[in-house]
Amino acid sequence: MPSTPLSQNSSATALASRRRVREYLTEKAAAVEKTLERLLPIPSPEDGGVAEAMRYTALSPGKRIRPIVFLAAAESYSTPASRFLPSACALEMVHACSLILDDLPCMDDADLRRGRPANHRVFGEDKAILAAFGLLNLAFGVVSADASLPVELRGEVASLLSQALGTRGLIGGQALDLASSPTGRNLHELEQIHSRKTGSLFIASVEMGALLGRAPDAERQALILFAKNLGLAYQIVDDLLDATSDSAVTGKHSHSDRRGNFVSLSGVEGARRLAEELSECALDHLSILGSRAALLRGLALHLTGRTR
Amino acid sequence: MPSTPLSQNSSATALASRRRVREYLTEKAAAVEKTLERLLPIPSPEDGGVAEAMRYTALSPGKRIRPIVFLAAAESYSTPASRFLPSACALEMVHACSLILDDLPCMDDADLRRGRPANHRVFGEDKAILAAFGLLNLAFGVVSADASLPVELRGEVASLLSQALGTRGLIGGQALDLASSPTGRNLHELEQIHSRKTGSLFIASVEMGALLGRAPDAERQALILFAKNLGLAYQIVDDLLDATSDSAVTGKHSHSDRRGNFVSLSGVEGARRLAEELSECALDHLSILGSRAALLRGLALHLTGRTR
Repeated sequence: MPSTPLSQNSSATALASRRRVREYLTEKAAAVEKTLERLLPIPSPEDGGVAEAMRYTALSPGKRIRPIVFLAAAESYSTPASRFLPSACALEMVHACSLILDDLPCMDDADLRRGRPANHRVFGEDKAILAAFGLLNLAFGVVSADASLPVELRGEVASLLSQALGTRGLIGGQALDLASSPTGRNLHELEQIHSRKTGSLFIASVEMGALLGRAPDAERQALILFAKNLGLAYQIVDDLLDATSDSAVTGKHSHSDRRGNFVSLSGVEGARRLAEELSECALDHLSILGSRAALLRGLALHLTGRTR
Repeated sequence: MPSTPLSQNSSATALASRRRVREYLTEKAAAVEKTLERLLPIPSPEDGGVAEAMRYTALSPGKRIRPIVFLAAAESYSTPASRFLPSACALEMVHACSLILDDLPCMDDADLRRGRPANHRVFGEDKAILAAFGLLNLAFGVVSADASLPVELRGEVASLLSQALGTRGLIGGQALDLASSPTGRNLHELEQIHSRKTGSLFIASVEMGALLGRAPDAERQALILFAKNLGLAYQIVDDLLDATSDSAVTGKHSHSDRRGNFVSLSGVEGARRLAEELSECALDHLSILGSRAALLRGLALHLTGRTR
């Protein structure tokens, strides 16, 4: 079918939107990194080396997806989101904490992360664990004392974060992952695990955005469902990347998840279809926000590797 | 010198006061344990075993000193402290978290804690680490969503806790401890380490009490100095107990701190003198509170093994 002016226009709009998303990602990642740099403790001889280990992982090259999803959610309510950069960094600190733990010898025993040796390979297991503990602790310290947040919401933001990380969230998901049999687990179990390991922090990101943007409850609920589906889709895309790339691309040793992932269970094509379905479902939930969700929609398409 | 009626009276008062402190300790420890039981997650097949590991250490027999010091500080301002039990439990959760981490193979490599096998000996290293993180995370979750705290103070309590645990507090102290040379460290370094490892959580306990009791600033500062000295004195008394008892008494393998402690550096007599000096200094700082500090004074005497 030959292009009509209309579809030419649509595709021009899509292209402009993709460019806008890429610019947003670059700009916000830089702002998050600058703020992280300021919030992380400065190494001193009196911290026993733990500040350096915290900075190593938190400042290592990363996409800063969770902070950016949070900022984009807050901006859906035309809140000037730059004042929320410290809270955005808290999400990245928690994520960095989970990466350090994931890589420990008693967990995934990974040598490489974000293209560099894993934290414990550089600083030793003891300091790596303390650094992870320090990052989690600092995340709570940042949101609970953030002067740019309304005082009555500081506790609520910290509480959202804690729920996302608890036994029903990231920590429970990681324990389930470690406890599950590498051969016997099925797609349902894998979804359970990653809804918690990845999904819960995506959900906290949009919920924090909705809370600080004072979103109506129906929109907050829609954003939660958006994030739940997007988180899982993003994990599957990550598994696909692991399965089809080498460590020079992913920055970690491929196939590090020896306990089975979406690709090993569903095959490349099956995993790709599942990611598309989830991403479609995520986008559907945004409809209630109308045009205010344009940025979140673009981010979701970008994160799941789709062009429309 | 024969007793005068006055000194008989004083000694009767001291006896009554000691009895009152013992009753207070028993009563509040029971209340803390009951509240902990309620706040800790109920094990479910979907948490991968981490809730059970969290409960194992948090509910294991303990003196609940930090929660009790907090409650006693709050009660110095005639606040009915029972409504602060959840915040008291947050202090115990953080303490339990630090015990699990301390005992890990890559840290003190201890087999026994509170008279039972260390957490990682029962649940494995991976689950022990996740349980420690679960406890830290829950502590922040509890204070930041505690409906019995004024909403504008929830963030402030969480922030106090975070400062006490950070690189200038417990985490930095533990890292310094691990980094320090077992042969070369001196008394000054040991004080530095334990001011952070033990002192910082004692300080947070009284600061939380002062904050929730809306103490005047001068009294808050005095309480901080009280806790700083008491924390160190308490640590030295603990070292003395380790040096002079076997594990049946202390509930941990004696001499587990192979990196040297106050007794190995100062001898039994020297350590005893230092503990007494610090305890005296702690008591001096309470004078600004007058009779309102009777309970804290009694607790300090009890905790440092003194009878007057």
